[in-house]
Amino acid sequence: MIDETKARSIIEPKILKGFRDFLPSMEIQKKAIITKLEEHFSLYGFVPINTPVLEYTEVLLGKGGGETDKQIFHFKDNGDRDVALRFDLTVPFARFLAQHQNELALPFKRFHIDKVWRGENPQKGRFREFTQCDFDIVGVDSAEADYEILAMMDSSFALMGVSDYQFCIAHRGLFNAFLAHLEVEEKSVDILRTVDKLRKIGEQEVVDLLQNIAGSEEKAKNILRYITKEDASEPFLATLERLSSLAGGEEEHTNRMKAIYHYLSEAGIEGHFTLDPSITRGLDYYTGIVYETFLTEIPHFGSVCSGGRYNDLASLYTKEKLPGVGSSIGLDRLLSALEELKSPILKDGSSAELVIFCLEESLYSWYDSLARQFRKQGIRTDVYLQQKKMPAQFKYAQTNNIVFGLTCGKEEHDQNRVTLKNLINREMHSMITIEEAISIIKRN
Amino acid sequence: MIDETKARSIIEPKILKGFRDFLPSMEIQKKAIITKLEEHFSLYGFVPINTPVLEYTEVLLGKGGGETDKQIFHFKDNGDRDVALRFDLTVPFARFLAQHQNELALPFKRFHIDKVWRGENPQKGRFREFTQCDFDIVGVDSAEADYEILAMMDSSFALMGVSDYQFCIAHRGLFNAFLAHLEVEEKSVDILRTVDKLRKIGEQEVVDLLQNIAGSEEKAKNILRYITKEDASEPFLATLERLSSLAGGEEEHTNRMKAIYHYLSEAGIEGHFTLDPSITRGLDYYTGIVYETFLTEIPHFGSVCSGGRYNDLASLYTKEKLPGVGSSIGLDRLLSALEELKSPILKDGSSAELVIFCLEESLYSWYDSLARQFRKQGIRTDVYLQQKKMPAQFKYAQTNNIVFGLTCGKEEHDQNRVTLKNLINREMHSMITIEEAISIIKRN
Repeated sequence: MIDETKARSIIEPKILKGFRDFLPSMEIQKKAIITKLEEHFSLYGFVPINTPVLEYTEVLLGKGGGETDKQIFHFKDNGDRDVALRFDLTVPFARFLAQHQNELALPFKRFHIDKVWRGENPQKGRFREFTQCDFDIVGVDSAEADYEILAMMDSSFALMGVSDYQFCIAHRGLFNAFLAHLEVEEKSVDILRTVDKLRKIGEQEVVDLLQNIAGSEEKAKNILRYITKEDASEPFLATLERLSSLAGGEEEHTNRMKAIYHYLSEAGIEGHFTLDPSITRGLDYYTGIVYETFLTEIPHFGSVCSGGRYNDLASLYTKEKLPGVGSSIGLDRLLSALEELKSPILKDGSSAELVIFCLEESLYSWYDSLARQFRKQGIRTDVYLQQKKMPAQFKYAQTNNIVFGLTCGKEEHDQNRVTLKNLINREMHSMITIEEAISIIKRN
Repeated sequence: MIDETKARSIIEPKILKGFRDFLPSMEIQKKAIITKLEEHFSLYGFVPINTPVLEYTEVLLGKGGGETDKQIFHFKDNGDRDVALRFDLTVPFARFLAQHQNELALPFKRFHIDKVWRGENPQKGRFREFTQCDFDIVGVDSAEADYEILAMMDSSFALMGVSDYQFCIAHRGLFNAFLAHLEVEEKSVDILRTVDKLRKIGEQEVVDLLQNIAGSEEKAKNILRYITKEDASEPFLATLERLSSLAGGEEEHTNRMKAIYHYLSEAGIEGHFTLDPSITRGLDYYTGIVYETFLTEIPHFGSVCSGGRYNDLASLYTKEKLPGVGSSIGLDRLLSALEELKSPILKDGSSAELVIFCLEESLYSWYDSLARQFRKQGIRTDVYLQQKKMPAQFKYAQTNNIVFGLTCGKEEHDQNRVTLKNLINREMHSMITIEEAISIIKRN
């Protein structure tokens, strides 16, 4: 229907680089995953929170600003306040904790699934607007809390129909003890960032960089020895003993790791966890366990869930110590991964299970009353809203992936029967009762 | 745990004026409503879409800009693009339709529940960040589509446990026909905006304003006569006949209204709909039915759901005509209203149904295995993650509104039994089986 009379100029309908529309087929699947995860987290007693999309820039960046600065969307609002779009869900959570600590019972277990924004140059699979799924336990520093986060991660991935995943876990405190033993602890930030690049730039380049930072080739090689597993099949506890002795027989963090591993074993899920000392996570605020998650069948997707223990996250905003442990799932990346793995959790993306075609507009009230009966049974039912030619109506059902169609005219109406068609295999059930139609659709 | 050694200065944890954090008790309720609505819309064959939070300012405001300009958050991004936060979900939807029309099957029925931002001065109950719930049918201009939107609104409100609500409905096309009959159609925009203020400024001031716009006292009084119901109890069809004759016997829109009313009556829900000609909705783009929704017990909340038919919404971005009809629920306002009405749809806001207290840290693996058994039964189960004194653990349960607690020590463990306490009425079930505990919790 082109409107020829229109003279007004048209604005090109376009969106910003690095941003995306989600069409129904994709959005239905994303929502299905989010709902599953939220229900699952709730089963563990985790609760949702929500925070503003816009915050004071100072609150998000700290007083320094620095490198993150260029990556975030920030501006002066109409009241001349310096404001910014959040770039993760962790910093707003720290602010939230400091602000509301008197209203919350500790330990506090929260989840938050929402969009965040970064001004990075968009690459394949990287977007300027993307969805993160965070869950944390705050207010308790115990092996039980560390274990619970890991166990909930594990059951979340099991739930999503991913058969083959591996959590690579390490302990930042143990690594720091090792660096202290090596007398390079004051270089730890630079060393951490370098080690974090191991997968990207390879061993040789890491050693070269470490030599400059740590001051000697021997120290660099020692660090490489710590972060490398000689044997991929080395058992968890054997690796732990080796790392502990490299750290001069450190006990506190070693015992924590032993306790966590004990709980994982008692729960029968220890097979999904590898002790991988090359995992350090670049960020400064981690103090205990750190981890990344890889889907074994599609390792090129990178880590789809990572996090760790931080014992001082909210220190920017409060003098209270609020120890915590938490994880973040990159939901868009996970969604792409689940698509590639053809996960059964992904719904068919259909708008409805049944469409009631409009054969006779005069029968619309009857069609509508039929629809209400099917909906009462939980069947997603669409009614075609005008009397168009049947090929157009069938095409509508096809584009929307609707499996069943009801083709009813005067005869069906007068006998209070329906004719049901399976639009995929073309099976037809003529003049059946509504109850029969309901049971056929439910059996499908 | 105050950290005395910390010298670093603290950033005040605060949020922007007009923005809000949602604590769990509130966010749980908001999510419960959203989930109910989304499931309900899906039953009608509506599908979700998602669009970016940030768009080109030109796309959102059109080439003119104008008054809305001051109300929106807009800025130059790092690439010197003029970008803005969306101020509603309707304009991005129009852009979405124009951009993806070849990928969608018409009629297209979509919903979108998400945040929008406006720079207005925050007042009581008004925020700069708020959540809208939009649903629309696009691609068909029929009484059936108009009716379906109204019927879905009606069942949505029934679903939310609101017992007393009224949809006030009018027809913009009929009103325009009346204005043409009165020979003031070229003033229609100003007249619409004036009439829309009736509830706010009262009859006398509206007449005064209309007299200036329409050019004579007689015309102003005529307009007032059109928009006023002489008798609140005047039946729908009687009002319609009266309006139709004031509009010179107009037929097209009158027949559309009759058809809609017929369908509402057939569905037995016509009692919730009043024909109220004072409803015009200020916005230019409406062309057919328009409506607002009032909760009869708390009318001071204003309209909680409004919308109408627009037959040319996407015309800013495409020459295709895309007729549509849609509604928007102000979700935050509705949430406040439901709270005031103590709607049964609002959950208790508890984090879990059951907490397993930690009497003996050495039994944690057993507690964890119990938790898994309860969760398998769909019972939201929290495990207390460290061995603290019992008063602290009980207080935790109380603050989180958790009804049941499991207090289990060595004796329970050795006999594989549990002791279950109802923390509200203090009823205690000592040394019962897990199955018994599950059935007591489920019965509650």
